[in-house]
Amino acid sequence: MTIALFADRAENWQRYRAPLERAFAERGLEVDLVNDTDAPETVDYIIYSPMGPVQDFAPFTNLKAVLSLWAGVERIEGNETIKVPLCRMVDEGLTGGMVEWVSGHVLRHHLGMDVHICHQDGVWRNGIVPPLARDRKVGFLGLGALGAVCARVLAGLGFDVAGWSRSAKDMEFPTFSGAAGLREILGRSEILVLLLPDTAATRNVLNNETLAVLPKGAVVINPGRGTLIDDDALLAALDSGHLGHATLDVFRQEPLPPEHPFWAHPKVTVTPHIASETRPESAARTIADNIARGEAGQPFVHVVDRKAGY
Amino acid sequence: MTIALFADRAENWQRYRAPLERAFAERGLEVDLVNDTDAPETVDYIIYSPMGPVQDFAPFTNLKAVLSLWAGVERIEGNETIKVPLCRMVDEGLTGGMVEWVSGHVLRHHLGMDVHICHQDGVWRNGIVPPLARDRKVGFLGLGALGAVCARVLAGLGFDVAGWSRSAKDMEFPTFSGAAGLREILGRSEILVLLLPDTAATRNVLNNETLAVLPKGAVVINPGRGTLIDDDALLAALDSGHLGHATLDVFRQEPLPPEHPFWAHPKVTVTPHIASETRPESAARTIADNIARGEAGQPFVHVVDRKAGY
Repeated sequence: MTIALFADRAENWQRYRAPLERAFAERGLEVDLVNDTDAPETVDYIIYSPMGPVQDFAPFTNLKAVLSLWAGVERIEGNETIKVPLCRMVDEGLTGGMVEWVSGHVLRHHLGMDVHICHQDGVWRNGIVPPLARDRKVGFLGLGALGAVCARVLAGLGFDVAGWSRSAKDMEFPTFSGAAGLREILGRSEILVLLLPDTAATRNVLNNETLAVLPKGAVVINPGRGTLIDDDALLAALDSGHLGHATLDVFRQEPLPPEHPFWAHPKVTVTPHIASETRPESAARTIADNIARGEAGQPFVHVVDRKAGY
Repeated sequence: MTIALFADRAENWQRYRAPLERAFAERGLEVDLVNDTDAPETVDYIIYSPMGPVQDFAPFTNLKAVLSLWAGVERIEGNETIKVPLCRMVDEGLTGGMVEWVSGHVLRHHLGMDVHICHQDGVWRNGIVPPLARDRKVGFLGLGALGAVCARVLAGLGFDVAGWSRSAKDMEFPTFSGAAGLREILGRSEILVLLLPDTAATRNVLNNETLAVLPKGAVVINPGRGTLIDDDALLAALDSGHLGHATLDVFRQEPLPPEHPFWAHPKVTVTPHIASETRPESAARTIADNIARGEAGQPFVHVVDRKAGY
């Protein structure tokens, strides 16, 4: 019997238990799913969240893998007590939700919707016709599982899409990499979407210097990580008129404190970390797939490269 | 030499002249493009808008076709002085713009964006996660050139799309037709998009009776024609709480008068007839394609069925 320890908060145990048991049954896996154990040496898999009780993995001497419930692994990847593969969550529900949030907000800014949504004052403002999507340049920083899918969908909607990643990637749209490539993609992006992981190399990737490279009036959309942006530099670029707007879903401190200047800024839209929400049904299938691979002696998927940090 | 008379306002002559001449040259057509003539019997084609000078077509005794600059032909299709094919505008730029406007507003309502765009009050409202697009039912009334393309794009984004047209059509998503089919699609549509033509049969298609069939909280999006909706019935359905919102781009009177209750209604978004905007470059290609067909003795495309009215 395979033993899987669910190590997240009690309320998530209620949400995940049935979907996980269904996903195991669908794959013919005989898994004893528990949320507590007196015998850590018997545990084969830990289903992990940073909010759960397990921080020291040393007692789990026969562990085969740590399966993260979170897509972001910055709060676990440095944990040196983990000696087995660490797999991140790649949830089709989370990916779908992110694609919808990103597509919706790119279209919102492309079409200039806010003036109509928020200013219903009887003035018929039909003078400004937005360009077609094919004449709108959208840049994606980050071409991982989420960034690549979002960029592809926006390209499918007709936008003039480009992407940037630290190491060069070949996609069906123009791509850039490295420090010189970063300046190139920033220089062309009327709408910039941040979907980079949080690593030492990506922190404050948008700062005074890089924000200045964006074209005047550019819009920044951040559903990635709060640490990607130097908040003060962003506010300065909005106040100077260099940037047109920022729509932010993630922050250095969450919930974003009520007194934070982002809330009151007329050129900032705050959304409360809703772009990527893991859905238990689909996340359970991802966990079960990896356990099935492990039990069949196949390599795990979505394994974190712990040197790179993602 | 083929003679084409441009019959629209002077300002549009300035916008269209060069794109039309480029489109003719690209096809090797020798066309004398004029915006006035003393010899109507020499004119081969009229490039027509209801805002232009030509209303009586009888003097144009050798006319081959009337090529409308407008997608909607309700202001010309009853003109009995036209004895030649009347072709409506099918502009890839107009289609692209409509797809972007419809996709953007469907995603806006699906994601519940307005609460974040308009109420930046420091409250972290992360409790409400929208369903995934596959669990959101979107209905299209009208499966003509615009409706079919928009429905396909929304289906491609993952929405649970269905469509209705007067006569049955086979599409890659569920379709309904006729009066019974209208009630079926209304009953399932959480978001309803109107892209029907303006005909005697479609006027007030949304009225007290049909609005009542929509599920509670449904959103109506109208980029089609103002006459499709009984305005008073729509306001009553919004006020009673039965409908969640209406986003309207077209109206019985345009510009919508400042005193119209739509402007002040908290559940109505007015956009100023911007969803479908003909772009001269692409519209000129459509006109030139039809002239090329006429000159080669081929049948015209986009010909209006004047009995059906569209």
